[in-house]
Amino acid sequence: MDPFMQAAIDQAIRGRSEGGIPIGSVIVRNGEIIGRGRNKRIQEDNPILHGEMDCLLQAGRQRSYRDTTIYSTLMPCYMCAGTIVQFKIPRVIVGESKSFVGARDFMEAHGVQVVDLDLDVCKKMMQEFIDSYPDIWYEDIADL
Amino acid sequence: MDPFMQAAIDQAIRGRSEGGIPIGSVIVRNGEIIGRGRNKRIQEDNPILHGEMDCLLQAGRQRSYRDTTIYSTLMPCYMCAGTIVQFKIPRVIVGESKSFVGARDFMEAHGVQVVDLDLDVCKKMMQEFIDSYPDIWYEDIADL
Repeated sequence: MDPFMQAAIDQAIRGRSEGGIPIGSVIVRNGEIIGRGRNKRIQEDNPILHGEMDCLLQAGRQRSYRDTTIYSTLMPCYMCAGTIVQFKIPRVIVGESKSFVGARDFMEAHGVQVVDLDLDVCKKMMQEFIDSYPDIWYEDIADL
Repeated sequence: MDPFMQAAIDQAIRGRSEGGIPIGSVIVRNGEIIGRGRNKRIQEDNPILHGEMDCLLQAGRQRSYRDTTIYSTLMPCYMCAGTIVQFKIPRVIVGESKSFVGARDFMEAHGVQVVDLDLDVCKKMMQEFIDSYPDIWYEDIADL
């Protein structure tokens, strides 16, 4: 397993153990993780802290993101994809997009390289959560 | 002046008095403000708290945004526009788009109604800030 994707999965597992939605993310520059985050809708009652958003918050203010890669266990939604486009993050590596199709086309149309690893571990984690807590999941993607 | 836009401007003025970037936002349901926010990059060293994002954070978790309107003193960037699209907020009213063109086309392509009031008070506020602190502004829109 790619160690950066493993770090994102570790964040998702930690989120799940806190009672949250199991989506994790890390951002990497020069082979080093500069931010780690996880979806905190439940933990902090926060509707904007998806995994990628928390990851960018934890990384803190950066002069530029042009030399970074962001990892997420799940394909980014329009909020997170819009942030990736606005912040000019050139590359996104995701664990899967079966549980949620997300905004891949939008990112690619803006020149972002998107790699989908289609990992069973990520799909299983999300599917178990969605099956157990559909209301929380559909609230998270504003699809109630 | 529209009282909701005035409330967004008040948030921007408050942000500026705190040393921050003067962009404010409110979200309205049934004629009532349910969240108020302002850009807090400087105040909280937070790269994701644009005015609209803070406004949605302050509004807290909602089951649906389909009956809301969001106001912002400035045209939303791709982060905030992506959030508006993902959250299915149907209407955006902005103070101006001269200082920053933002992601109007993207929102409209996703069925969001966008109204630009082109207000001198908003343009003046942003122009003074950008002239005084160009580095902070271009960091905020990731254009350094």
